Amino acid sequence: MKQKFIRKAIEIARKGMENNDGGPFGCVIVKNGAIIAEGNNRVTSKNDPTAHAEIVAIRKACKTLSSFQLTGCEIYTSCEPCPMCLGAIYWARPSRIYYAATREDAAEAGFDDEFIYKEIDIPPGERKIPMKQIERSSAKSLFTEWIKKENKTAY
Amino acid sequence: MKQKFIRKAIEIARKGMENNDGGPFGCVIVKNGAIIAEGNNRVTSKNDPTAHAEIVAIRKACKTLSSFQLTGCEIYTSCEPCPMCLGAIYWARPSRIYYAATREDAAEAGFDDEFIYKEIDIPPGERKIPMKQIERSSAKSLFTEWIKKENKTAY
Repeated sequence: MKQKFIRKAIEIARKGMENNDGGPFGCVIVKNGAIIAEGNNRVTSKNDPTAHAEIVAIRKACKTLSSFQLTGCEIYTSCEPCPMCLGAIYWARPSRIYYAATREDAAEAGFDDEFIYKEIDIPPGERKIPMKQIERSSAKSLFTEWIKKENKTAY
Repeated sequence: MKQKFIRKAIEIARKGMENNDGGPFGCVIVKNGAIIAEGNNRVTSKNDPTAHAEIVAIRKACKTLSSFQLTGCEIYTSCEPCPMCLGAIYWARPSRIYYAATREDAAEAGFDDEFIYKEIDIPPGERKIPMKQIERSSAKSLFTEWIKKENKTAY
C-alpha cells in the first residue's frame, strides 16, 4: 500500500512536469486506505509561489473533508517537504508522512529547500531576506484580546 | 511609512478576528510605497490550514503582479511568520520583512508557531508527526529528468 501511494505521488510529479505545471513534485493524501486528494507543483503556471504539491493537496483534502484538520490522514510526497510545506502539514495535523527524495536531492536539482532550512536557523536580522521587528506592543495587545474572546474557533 | 503599514497589518488582523475569519493575524504587501495586497488569517472560516495572513497576501500580490516572485516588495505582518509562512516568503523572494509580535507571543496565545519551529530541528523520524523515507531512487531519477528538461521555467 505504501509503495502504491508513493509511486502515485511520483507519477503525479512526472505528469505535472511534462505538462509544464511547475517543478517535478507530487503528493497524495490518504484516509482509510483511499486517496482523498492529489496535488502537483503549479508555481510557475499559476503564478503562485505557494502552489507546492503538498499545499495543493492539503487544500483539496480539507475542502473534501470540510475541515481544517487532516486527522487520521497520511501524506505521501515525492520529495521531503520544504519548510513551507512541512509547516502546512503541521498545521493540518495528519498522522504520518512518507517521502521519497530528500531536501539534498532537491537542492542538486536547483531547488531552494535546503537553503530555506538553513536560513530558518539564522537570527531574523541576519538572514538573506532581512527581518525587522517593530510595533510589538500593539500586536501583543491583540493576542490578549484573542485570549479573552469568547466566540472563537481555536486551531 | 513603516509604522503606517505595520499598523495597517495589525488593524486587518483585528478586523479578521472580530469577523471570526480565523486567528488575529494580518499582513500587507507593499511595492514602491503602495499596498498591493492585504491578507488576514482565514483558517477556520475557509477550512484551509494554509490560509494564514501572509499566504493569503502573497497569493493576492502575485496575482496582481502576474508573477510568482515578489521582487522589490516589502512584507508587513502583525506577527513573526510561522515556518510555513517564512518558507512561502522565501519562495516569493521579497526584499524585506517587518513583523510586530514574536513567535513566543503567538505561543502564549495558544498558537503552534514556536512548536513547529522546534520540530523542524528534530530528525524526521523522531518528530511528533512521524516521517519515513521510501522509494528514493525513483524520485531521484525524476530530478535527473528535470535537470535535462529543456522547455522549463525554473523558480
